[in-house]
This record gives sequence, structure tokens and C-alpha cells, in this order.
Amino acid sequence: MSDAFLLAGRTFHSRLLVGTGKYKDMTETAEAIAASGAEIVTVAVRRTNIGQTPGEPNLLDVISPDRYTILPNTAGCYSAEEAVRTCRLARELLDDHKLVKLEVLGDQKTLYPNMPETLKAAETLIKEGFEVMVYCNDDPIAARLLAEMGCVAVMPLGSLIGSGLGIVNPYNLRIILEEATVPVLIDAGVGTASDAAVAMELGAAGVLMNTAIAAAGKPVLMASAMKKAVEAGREAFLAERMPRKLYASASSPLDGMAFR
Amino acid sequence: MSDAFLLAGRTFHSRLLVGTGKYKDMTETAEAIAASGAEIVTVAVRRTNIGQTPGEPNLLDVISPDRYTILPNTAGCYSAEEAVRTCRLARELLDDHKLVKLEVLGDQKTLYPNMPETLKAAETLIKEGFEVMVYCNDDPIAARLLAEMGCVAVMPLGSLIGSGLGIVNPYNLRIILEEATVPVLIDAGVGTASDAAVAMELGAAGVLMNTAIAAAGKPVLMASAMKKAVEAGREAFLAERMPRKLYASASSPLDGMAFR
Amino acid sequence: MSDAFLLAGRTFHSRLLVGTGKYKDMTETAEAIAASGAEIVTVAVRRTNIGQTPGEPNLLDVISPDRYTILPNTAGCYSAEEAVRTCRLARELLDDHKLVKLEVLGDQKTLYPNMPETLKAAETLIKEGFEVMVYCNDDPIAARLLAEMGCVAVMPLGSLIGSGLGIVNPYNLRIILEEATVPVLIDAGVGTASDAAVAMELGAAGVLMNTAIAAAGKPVLMASAMKKAVEAGREAFLAERMPRKLYASASSPLDGMAFR
Amino acid sequence: MSDAFLLAGRTFHSRLLVGTGKYKDMTETAEAIAASGAEIVTVAVRRTNIGQTPGEPNLLDVISPDRYTILPNTAGCYSAEEAVRTCRLARELLDDHKLVKLEVLGDQKTLYPNMPETLKAAETLIKEGFEVMVYCNDDPIAARLLAEMGCVAVMPLGSLIGSGLGIVNPYNLRIILEEATVPVLIDAGVGTASDAAVAMELGAAGVLMNTAIAAAGKPVLMASAMKKAVEAGREAFLAERMPRKLYASASSPLDGMAFR
Repeated sequence: MSDAFLLAGRTFHSRLLVGTGKYKDMTETAEAIAASGAEIVTVAVRRTNIGQTPGEPNLLDVISPDRYTILPNTAGCYSAEEAVRTCRLARELLDDHKLVKLEVLGDQKTLYPNMPETLKAAETLIKEGFEVMVYCNDDPIAARLLAEMGCVAVMPLGSLIGSGLGIVNPYNLRIILEEATVPVLIDAGVGTASDAAVAMELGAAGVLMNTAIAAAGKPVLMASAMKKAVEAGREAFLAERMPRKLYASASSPLDGMAFR
Repeated sequence: MSDAFLLAGRTFHSRLLVGTGKYKDMTETAEAIAASGAEIVTVAVRRTNIGQTPGEPNLLDVISPDRYTILPNTAGCYSAEEAVRTCRLARELLDDHKLVKLEVLGDQKTLYPNMPETLKAAETLIKEGFEVMVYCNDDPIAARLLAEMGCVAVMPLGSLIGSGLGIVNPYNLRIILEEATVPVLIDAGVGTASDAAVAMELGAAGVLMNTAIAAAGKPVLMASAMKKAVEAGREAFLAERMPRKLYASASSPLDGMAFR
Repeated sequence: MSDAFLLAGRTFHSRLLVGTGKYKDMTETAEAIAASGAEIVTVAVRRTNIGQTPGEPNLLDVISPDRYTILPNTAGCYSAEEAVRTCRLARELLDDHKLVKLEVLGDQKTLYPNMPETLKAAETLIKEGFEVMVYCNDDPIAARLLAEMGCVAVMPLGSLIGSGLGIVNPYNLRIILEEATVPVLIDAGVGTASDAAVAMELGAAGVLMNTAIAAAGKPVLMASAMKKAVEAGREAFLAERMPRKLYASASSPLDGMAFR
Repeated sequence: MSDAFLLAGRTFHSRLLVGTGKYKDMTETAEAIAASGAEIVTVAVRRTNIGQTPGEPNLLDVISPDRYTILPNTAGCYSAEEAVRTCRLARELLDDHKLVKLEVLGDQKTLYPNMPETLKAAETLIKEGFEVMVYCNDDPIAARLLAEMGCVAVMPLGSLIGSGLGIVNPYNLRIILEEATVPVLIDAGVGTASDAAVAMELGAAGVLMNTAIAAAGKPVLMASAMKKAVEAGREAFLAERMPRKLYASASSPLDGMAFR
């Protein structure tokens, strides 16, 4: 099935985007990413050497920009200013690379996004010519503002970064997806394969994850699971699922009157 | 990864078992089943011609016993006696085939299993030399009784046949899986891909479904989704998922004190 | 509001039934039960002295049969025979008292009901003139069999005894409630006030609990909470809740197509 | 039990706050509010005559400020400017009343809060001497900003206004409650009694609702249900619930490894 995914003018076939943090070593990183089938790999510029520190191991030697679309991100930034500065650094290091993943977090404890700073940073970055994929909370109004502003993708959370709680609020995500004018990718919260499938079944264009793979008992095997789960969820979305009923012979789908 | 699945002394590689009901026509049936990758195909002997009615289209011409392990089932039986009789007929039609899926239902409205009749039928069938895979409710005590009795697999429901409600009671299934001495397959209730993944992530040996594929908008595509979802869930189970936490920096996993 | 509840020919006003186990001492037991407003108090005959051991503290001195309807139960019985014997003993001790709560459990680990033994014991007890309220799993077919057999109330679990997991399978309970010809009370599983409310909102005639009160940090306060929660849930059921919608302006209720 | 609730320097005993919209007529409004036991009643200044239109029925004739604390709100405002203007009007109409409930919505379709405009309006209103209770999304960073700014209470949603979906994201609410320096009340989303209990069990200081009562089949009865549910949930919170376990004999609470 041809089911390409258009992002910032480029065509991708994998709808699973992965990070590079928390692995045991660079070999495991490379193997897990290969097993995930990801085409877009996000890199925390503040934590990863992609050339800033010459002479030290460079992630790009293992995750080659020839093979992968490198997506620099601003993890570890807690203000618009820091995030903007980090993106500029990434652009320099990556030969005028314009595609970035913006995240501005609210605090170190929860890693919840700081939305006012995120909006501010997005505005600046877009003015400076960046193609901004933006990590955000699951606020439909914020998602719309970010799309209108010119972000190339909005990336609401399923649940908190590193929580593994999965898709906590499918209702907000459904509203965001119904209204979307740019690709919506679910970023953060996935804990296991079924979570990734749920995200795709809601109609997301893709899913980004890191901890769920890197912190699994067997990361490379989990990467393979996630590859299949994202494809499964995407195909299930396109295949249009059967209705949910109290029992098969019920004349109408469950209407949610009495149930969660 | 070699992850074979042993059932009644035979080795299988696919952990997705599928039915043959509710398809538009035999071509769609064959295509969906091929796309599902299933090796075991269950057939409702009371509703499907597998030789009882010579001269009419025979499902086995499309779903060949050379390629698939045919699993006759007793769908449509509401008493132990009917179910036993149906299994005997299947054995005759299928050249002394011993592997059957027993289901004795409680009523036509809900299709919930009738457990007293199921227990009775299982006992008789085992005495007669059948290898009984048994559809049952998610009662851990019943599951244990059926395994002790000699059933080759127990197949508790995720939710009601044809409901599409997914895995409603993961707690009971987890207890059944913890105690299991024979393979446990989740049978009934799967509505979409993530449901199948959830079933496998709980540690089930496999999943059996029919309506979720046949009643999807695009059955062949949904069959492919389910193939991937079952594999994804299995791999995620083996890969050992990350813990669930309120936030990444929490020192311990969520303990369920305050949450559903 | 007059909303009496008819059970075995008697009228009750409280729909909260409570147990007497696991309290610190008899004073706490009495205070918590008073705070719960319960009219029916269930007593585990095998664990509680209601006269079997003369000279020892007798629960009935604290929980007086003049004030409460004492409901002897067969907790701790693992076979029909034990349960029947226990009920006979209770009848003797309580002056030909006929109302009993039958429970036959499957094992000490899970305390899940053993349904075949439960059915057997119910049959015998009814023949012997007992009024049997029967603890059972959430199997709609079993619930129907027990009602047809002549049980005066069926008491399916919300989740396992002592688990505090609440109402895990509202779908099965809804089917049981839709079909019910005798009062249905939810017995076991309630962990906190909202669980009791959920049970009543489904349309249950009442709720029975013990651990949720006795094992709370402050049992007497929790007993008060449960009294209010059961009343709240009952009133909400009668008041007919608003529909669930994706958002207020949606033209139709949520149909459960994409959501759990 | 004395369990008073301090808000903006005043003491309240009821933790249920109610609105006045969507009732059949003023009599029903008055009866439902009386049944709810609410001490604080919120009024949409843009939709309700509280004196703006002399000669027309005035809500305050029915819901007397002598008996209730009137809480003017800015429902129907879609910008900071409109909201500020509405609060000023309310102050005038209500004799220099300073306590207001600020809400700035994102659109008429979803009624989701517009957080950037909400933050702006809160800032202005606080400068002008208002005591601002602020309706907001369930964003822990936004909640913290609003408290730091000087709002007297933050009021995150359980789910969308008028949706009846209950408490969709207990995790975010728990984080907000853990960090709170001002009272946190859950505003919006409650559909039935158990939802209100869940909100209180999470530790909320109170719950505000309108549609769940006004759009029930029997609003006055539902108001009574909600009164009890809020009290039940509060008491259950204070009473400290039992742990959730897979089964009673499990040595540790459920750790959420495999379950939702």
C-alpha cells in the first residue's frame, strides 16, 4: 500500500519518528533505530554531540544524515530564548538545516511543555526561516494557533515525556485531528506498542517516541514492535474499524450514555 | 526472531487465528485470511459448507487444508449435546481431524458462553479423543478447570463476540495468564489493531478474531493491520515495557492508589 | 424521596450493605456500620462468633439483630458442601433465619467465585427453604440461571474481593441489569466512594462492601462517604444523566467508534 | 465533621459550586440550586439579567445575594478584552463585588479555554483589584503561572464544558493538586455523580458544574445527587482509600506495569 506522508514538502514512508537518548551506547542506539524503520531521527542538540565538541564521538557518525533526516530538537530548554538559540546552533552545525523540533519545557520535574514560551519561540523561529515541528500539550486552541502561525507540524503529547502512560486524552487529540491543517504527530507518552497503535488509530500522521524504546528491557526488539504497531495502527485507521456495541446483536453502536 | 508457538503438539509461527464468517464473498475471505498471515483458520461447522452439502461451494476449496490448519468450531451451539454432535460431524468431514474449537453459547442475544454446558461438552470431547481448544469467559477458576480437564488451550474472551469492545478486564486475563498450564489465547472482543496488541502485551499466546476483520470497512487491509498488531504486541511483551510513572522523574512507578 | 428497595419480601431504605471483617476492634466495627447507614449487615459465620462459641465476645451484642438485618455469609467456603453446612449452622444460631448470602470461592489466592459449586449450593439451599442472595462473577448467563433457580438476589462482583479495583466490566453488569428478574447488588471490588456511585449509576439495586471501609485509613469516615456515594449514585441513576459528547455543540452523543 | 473550605478569605462549607444556565425556568433553577446545597452560584453576566436590563426578570430575585455568594463569570467571552469588560460590568452591577470567575474561550464549537487570552485577562483583572477564580485547561504549568500571578483559585477542566465526559486526565490534575498554592476546583466536564466524586477523591477543593444538573432528566434530583457525591468524594479523600491490588492476597499494590 502506498501511504506516503508529506512533511515540510518532503515525502516519508515511515510514520515512526524516534529519539536517540537513554541508550546504553551508540551501538544500541544505531541498532534500535535501524529496527524501528524510522526515517526521521530527532537529536537533543544540548545533550548530544553532533559536531559542537570536535574530537568527541559524534552521533552523526552512527546515525548518518545520508540515511536519516536529522531533526534537531530543543530538549532541555526552558525558555523561548534558549530554544531559539539552540535551533540556530543546530542550523549552523547541520549546514543550514531548517527543519527543527521545538520544545520548551515548563520544569525539570514534569517536563510538561511551557506553552506561552513555546508560542513565542515558534513565532521567532518561523520568522527566521525555520521549518518548525512543535511539541505542545493537547490543547486544541494552542494547536490551531501553532498551525496558523506556520508550524509545519504540531506534535501534541499523548502523556508526559517519559511517563509511559500512553494516550490519556483521546478526546482532545481527536478534536485537534479533526481541525488540523498541518500534520499532527503524537509526541511523548507512548509506553508500549498498543499505545502507538492507539495514536495512529485516532488518525495521527505519525508518532514520535524515545523512552518507550530506549528504556524497554530489550530496546532493539521494542523498536521492531513499535515499527509494526505504528503500521498496524495506521492500517487500522485506513481500514475503518467495526462499531463498538454492547453485544453483537445490538441495533446501534454504544452511545456512551452510561459508560466511560 | 524465532518465537514459535506450540499448540497441541504442533508448532505455529503466526499467533493470529482467524474466522471465516461475515465476509462479502469467498474471494474476500481468502484474500483477508492470506493478508492476516494466519496459519490456523476456524470454521463454523453449522454455518459453513466443508463437505456436508455436496455440490455447493465448499470453503475448503478456497481455504485449503494443505495450507491452513482448519479448526472446526461449534458456533451456533447452545448446549453441550449440540456442540459434541457438531464436533463429531467435523471429525468425520475432516478425515479424523481431532483439533476443535469448542464454544457453547448462552443465548443468541449476547453470545456470552454458557459455562456449565461448556464444561460438560469439554469433558465429553476430551474423553472421545478430541483436542479441545475452548472458548470461555474470563473466569480464572473456569480457565483452570478446563486446563486441568485436558483442554489443549483455553480461550477467554476479551469482550463479547462481535462487540468490538476490546480487552475489558485485563485483570482477570492477567490472573488466567499467570496461572496457565496450557496456552491461553484471547478469543472475541477485539475491535481494532490496538486491542490485539493489548491482548498480546498481557502475555497471551495468541489472539483469535473474525468480526474485527470481516466487518471493517476494508477487511483485507484490516487483516494486514491485525497481523502487524499481533506481532507488535508479542514483541512488546517479550521486550519488557518501561514502567508507567506519573512523570519521568518520579522515583517509583504509579501504584494505582488514586487512579483507574 | 421515597425509594424503597424490596428484597426477599422485606422493604429496606438503605442500599448499602456492609460486612464486619477486618476492623481494628468491635467498637470500630459498630461505629463504622452505624455511619454507613446500612440496614443489612453480613457476617462471615466461619470467622465470626455469633453464638457458636459461648463465653467469647459475640458480634450480635454489638450489631444487634433488633436493629440490623443480619445476613450470614459463607465466606471461607470452597465447596458447595461446606457452604450448605455453614448456612444450616447459621439458621440454627439465628433462630430459623432463612436469608443468607452464599459465596463459594475458587481459591484463597484470588477469592474468585467457584461458579459450578455456587450453582450446586444455591440449588440445595433453595430446596431447603433458604432465601439465597448469591455472590457470583459477572457472567450474564450464570446470573440468569441463579435467578431462574430462585435466588432472591444475584450479587455479581465489580472486581475481586479485597482488590479495590472498582467496576471493571460495566458492560457485563449492564447486560445482567437489563435482564434481571430479581434485585442485582454489586458485591466486591469497590475501593472508594466513586466506585460505589458507578455501581449505582449502572442501575444496581444496591452495593455490598467490606474492605473498602474497613481497610481505609479512617473507616468511620469512609463509611459515611460510602453512604453518601450510594445515595448519590442511586439518585443520579433515577435523575437520568446528560449524554456524553465530544463537545457541547456536537449534534449526537459519542458513539464509541474511536474511543474506549 | 468540620471541613471548611477557605476561598478568597471567606469560609464556605459546601464544596459544590453551581451555575444557573440551561434550566427550564427560574423556578427550576431555584429548586435545583437549593437542592445542591451550593453556597457559591456562578452567573454568566453576558447571558443573565442581574440588573443590566431593568424591568426584565432578574435572577437575583430568585438567587438572592443575601443567601448565596454570587460569582459572576465571563462565559461567552472569546478575548481578554471582552472578559475584562464583563468583569467590570459585574462589579458595577453587584456593588463593587470583587470575586469573579474568569473564562476566556477559544471557540464556540469546543468551548475549550483560550489560555493566552486567559493569562492576559487574569493579569489585568488582578491589577484592577479583582479576586480572580480562573477557568483553565489541565496544564500544570499554566495552573502554576495563574496561581503565582495572584488568582485566588485555579479551576482546571475535567473535560470540555457541556461534554459530560468526566475526569479525562486525572494525571495532570494530580500534578496540579500536588503543586497547588491556592485552592484547585474542578470546573467543567462532570456528567454524573461519580465524576464529581472522582474529582474530589483526587483532592480537589471543590467542583463547579452546570450542565450535569441542568441537562439531567430530573435536574432537582440530580442536584441532590451531586451534593452527596461531592461530600462522598471529599470524605473518601480524607478517609484515605485502600490500595488497589490485583487480588486481596497480593503483597503489593498494582504497579501499573501492564495496565491502564
